[in-house]
Amino acid sequence: MEFLVRFETRLPDTMGEEERKRLREAERARAMRLREDGLLKRLWRVPGRRAVVGLWEAPDATALHDALASLPQFPWMDVTVEALAVHPQEV
Amino acid sequence: MEFLVRFETRLPDTMGEEERKRLREAERARAMRLREDGLLKRLWRVPGRRAVVGLWEAPDATALHDALASLPQFPWMDVTVEALAVHPQEV
Amino acid sequence: MEFLVRFETRLPDTMGEEERKRLREAERARAMRLREDGLLKRLWRVPGRRAVVGLWEAPDATALHDALASLPQFPWMDVTVEALAVHPQEV
Amino acid sequence: MEFLVRFETRLPDTMGEEERKRLREAERARAMRLREDGLLKRLWRVPGRRAVVGLWEAPDATALHDALASLPQFPWMDVTVEALAVHPQEV
Amino acid sequence: MEFLVRFETRLPDTMGEEERKRLREAERARAMRLREDGLLKRLWRVPGRRAVVGLWEAPDATALHDALASLPQFPWMDVTVEALAVHPQEV
Amino acid sequence: MEFLVRFETRLPDTMGEEERKRLREAERARAMRLREDGLLKRLWRVPGRRAVVGLWEAPDATALHDALASLPQFPWMDVTVEALAVHPQEV
Amino acid sequence: MEFLVRFETRLPDTMGEEERKRLREAERARAMRLREDGLLKRLWRVPGRRAVVGLWEAPDATALHDALASLPQFPWMDVTVEALAVHPQEV
Amino acid sequence: MEFLVRFETRLPDTMGEEERKRLREAERARAMRLREDGLLKRLWRVPGRRAVVGLWEAPDATALHDALASLPQFPWMDVTVEALAVHPQEV
Amino acid sequence: MEFLVRFETRLPDTMGEEERKRLREAERARAMRLREDGLLKRLWRVPGRRAVVGLWEAPDATALHDALASLPQFPWMDVTVEALAVHPQEV
Amino acid sequence: MEFLVRFETRLPDTMGEEERKRLREAERARAMRLREDGLLKRLWRVPGRRAVVGLWEAPDATALHDALASLPQFPWMDVTVEALAVHPQEV
Repeated sequence: MEFLVRFETRLPDTMGEEERKRLREAERARAMRLREDGLLKRLWRVPGRRAVVGLWEAPDATALHDALASLPQFPWMDVTVEALAVHPQEV
Repeated sequence: MEFLVRFETRLPDTMGEEERKRLREAERARAMRLREDGLLKRLWRVPGRRAVVGLWEAPDATALHDALASLPQFPWMDVTVEALAVHPQEV
Repeated sequence: MEFLVRFETRLPDTMGEEERKRLREAERARAMRLREDGLLKRLWRVPGRRAVVGLWEAPDATALHDALASLPQFPWMDVTVEALAVHPQEV
Repeated sequence: MEFLVRFETRLPDTMGEEERKRLREAERARAMRLREDGLLKRLWRVPGRRAVVGLWEAPDATALHDALASLPQFPWMDVTVEALAVHPQEV
Repeated sequence: MEFLVRFETRLPDTMGEEERKRLREAERARAMRLREDGLLKRLWRVPGRRAVVGLWEAPDATALHDALASLPQFPWMDVTVEALAVHPQEV
Repeated sequence: MEFLVRFETRLPDTMGEEERKRLREAERARAMRLREDGLLKRLWRVPGRRAVVGLWEAPDATALHDALASLPQFPWMDVTVEALAVHPQEV
Repeated sequence: MEFLVRFETRLPDTMGEEERKRLREAERARAMRLREDGLLKRLWRVPGRRAVVGLWEAPDATALHDALASLPQFPWMDVTVEALAVHPQEV
Repeated sequence: MEFLVRFETRLPDTMGEEERKRLREAERARAMRLREDGLLKRLWRVPGRRAVVGLWEAPDATALHDALASLPQFPWMDVTVEALAVHPQEV
Repeated sequence: MEFLVRFETRLPDTMGEEERKRLREAERARAMRLREDGLLKRLWRVPGRRAVVGLWEAPDATALHDALASLPQFPWMDVTVEALAVHPQEV
Repeated sequence: MEFLVRFETRLPDTMGEEERKRLREAERARAMRLREDGLLKRLWRVPGRRAVVGLWEAPDATALHDALASLPQFPWMDVTVEALAVHPQEV
C-alpha cells in the first residue's frame, strides 16, 4: 500500500554544524537503505522550504511509522501521512 | 490495518421522504453486511450533527475505499480517512 | 518539471446518468492520451472521496494548465497544483 | 460515555534522556492503571507523529479531565477531546 | 454534565413565510419544553447572525443529541458541541 | 452585557514551582473578587487543556478588558472574547 | 461602546433587478437613519468585494444586533462583529 | 501604488454558452482598456483553476475598486486585494 | 487613503521591566507624533489581548509601512494591513 | 517560467546587530546578482511586516529552489512558492 508523506525538518538553532553534518549523512544512509528495502520509492523537494514530499510503500501504517521513526532526523521532523488508494486507471 | 473514518451525509433537499427512507434502510443493511465481513468495527455519532465517526479495518486503503463506496448514501457523503498505526501499548 | 496535482470532481446533481457515463469515458480516453504524451505519470485515489492525486510532468505551469484544461470534466474539477523540485537524493 | 481524545506530546529539548525514560515508564504504568479502571479503552498511534488517538470512557468530561491530568506527561501534552454519542446501529 | 452548543439555522430560500412562522413557533415551544426538563439552561444570540450559543445539561452526549434532534428546525441547523468539565472554583 | 471569554494559560517553563503556586493562589483570590463584583459569573474547564471558558458580565468591552487584565496570570494568558446578545427567549 | 462590524451581502441570483434596486434604496435610507441615531459611525468598502467594514456604537451587543437586523438586506448579509475596548491613548 | 489582486470567476451553471462568450469578449475588451489606462499591469493564470493573479496600479483602493467593478464579469468574481509597498531594492 | 491596521505586540520574556517601560513611553511619544502628522487617526484595544486595531491614513502602502516601522516596538509587533476604499454613502 | 514567491525573515533574537548588518548586506548583494541573472524580476514589501513578495523566473522549480537557497538569510526565511501560468491576454 502506498502513502504520500510530507515532512519538514527543523534542527534546533543550538545544534552545532558538525552535528548537523553527521545527522544529514546518517539520514542519507538510512534513506538509501529504506529505498533498497522498497519502502521509500520517490522523494521530491518542496521549492523554497526544508520540506520533502515522498512516496512510500509499506504493508500498513504501523510499518510505515517504523520506517519513518528509523530516520536519524525523525525527532526534529514534522510529518503528515496520507493513505493512497489504487486508481482504477492504474490497474 | 485500522482506519478512523469520519463522514457527514447531506441528502439533497429535493429528495422525497420515501426515497430517503429507502436509502436509510439500504444503508443500514449494507453497514450490517460490512460489520459481518469485519470491515466496519464501530460507529459513533457526532452529537448535534448528521455525522459519524467509525473504526474500520481493511487490508489497505483501496479495500477501504471499495467498502465505503459500496454504501448506498456514498454519493452524498463527505468522507475523511485517517490511517492508524498500532500503539505499542496495544500489542 | 514535475507537479503534484490534486483534484476533486463534482458533477452537478442535475446531470443525467447517460451524460455522466459519456463524460467518464471521454475523461478516461483523454487521460490515457496524456499518459502516452508523458504528461500524466501516476494517479492515486484519495480513499473515501471523488478526489485524485496525480503526478504530472510538463515543461512549465502553462503546459500543465493546458493539459488539465483539456480534460472533459475540467469545468467541474476543483484543482490545486504544487510545483516540485528535484530532491538531491534522486539525482 | 465515550470520548475520542487526541494528544501529541512534546517534551522540552532541555530534558535529559534519563528523565525522558523515567517519564515514559511512569506514563505507561499510569495508562495501564487507567485501562484497568475502564477509563482508557483503546490507543492508536498517528503514523509519523508523536501523537496518539485514544478511545476513553468516563461518566462525564470532569472525570475524563481528571484521568488525562493524572498522566505524568500531561504538562507537555496538547490534548483535544471530542464527545461521542451512541450510534443507533450500535444499540 | 454541561455542554456549550453553538448553532446557526439556515432555512431554505424556497420555504414560504407561513412555513417559517409555523417552524419558529414549534421551535420556541419545543425549546420551552427542553428548559422545563432541565436540558436547556441558557441561550444567547450571536450579534449580527442567525446563530445561537446555548448552555445545555444532559447525562451524556447521546441524550444531548436526542434533545437537539428533537428541535423542529434541526434539519436546517449547523451544530457544534463542546463538552465542558467542572472548574475547580465552581465546586 | 455578557461576554463569553475563552483563555488558555501557559506559564513559562523557566518559572519555578513556588512562583507558580503563588500565582495560582493570587489568581484564585482575584477571580473570587471579580465574582463578588458580579463581573465573573461562571467558569468551565475545557477537558484535557489548561483552558477555561467563562461567562462574564460588564458594562462594556473596556470594563471587561480591565477585569481580565487585573488577573495575575494575564501576561501568560491567550484570551479571546465573544460579545453576546440577549436571546429573545430569555427575556 | 464601539463595535467593528464586517458584512458581505449576497442577493440570490433569482432576485430581479427591480427588487435589487428597491432593496438597495431601502438599505441606504435605513443606514442614513442609523447614522442619525448615532449607531452607525463610519463605513468603508473592502476593495474588490461586495463587503463593508463599519464602525458602530451601541449600548450593548443586543442593541447592535437590533440595529443590524433592521437593515432591509439583513437576511442576505453574512455578518461578523468584533467588540472594541477604548485604547488608553484615546482617553 | 501597486496592488496584487487575485480573483476567481464562477459563472452560474444556468448561463448559456452564448452569454458566456459575450461576457468573455466584453471582459477582454475592458481589460485591454484598463491596461491602456495603466491600471492593469500584468496578469497570470493560476494553473488548474479559473483564477487569475494580477498586478494593478491605482492612486488608492477606491480607484482600484472602481476599476475592478468595471469588469463585466465582476458580479461573479471572488476577489482579494493585497496592498503592496515599494521594496527598498527597487528604488 | 485609509488602512485598517491590526497589531499584537509580544516583547521577549527576557526583556527587563525598565526596558519595557522605556519602550512603552517611546511608543506613546511616537504614536502621538504620528497622530499630529495625520497618519494615525484612531486606536482601539482588542479586549483581553495585547492587540490593537487602528485606523491610519497615508498616501500609499509605502508611506504606511514607514510610519509603522518608525514605532519603537515595531520589531516585536505582528502586523496585518487591510486597504480600505471609500464607501459611496460616505461621500 | 514565472513564480510568485512570498517570504518572511525572522533572524533569531540572539543574533547581534553586527551580524544582522553583515547578513543584510550579503543578502542585498546576492539579490542584485540574481537580478542580473534574470532570476529575480521584481520585489514588493508587504506593508507592516518583514515580508516580501517577489516575481521570479526560472527554468523549473529546482532552479528556483537553488536561487532561493543561495540567499544568505535563507536559513531564517519562511518561503512559499506559487507556480504561475501565462495568461492568454499576455501573449
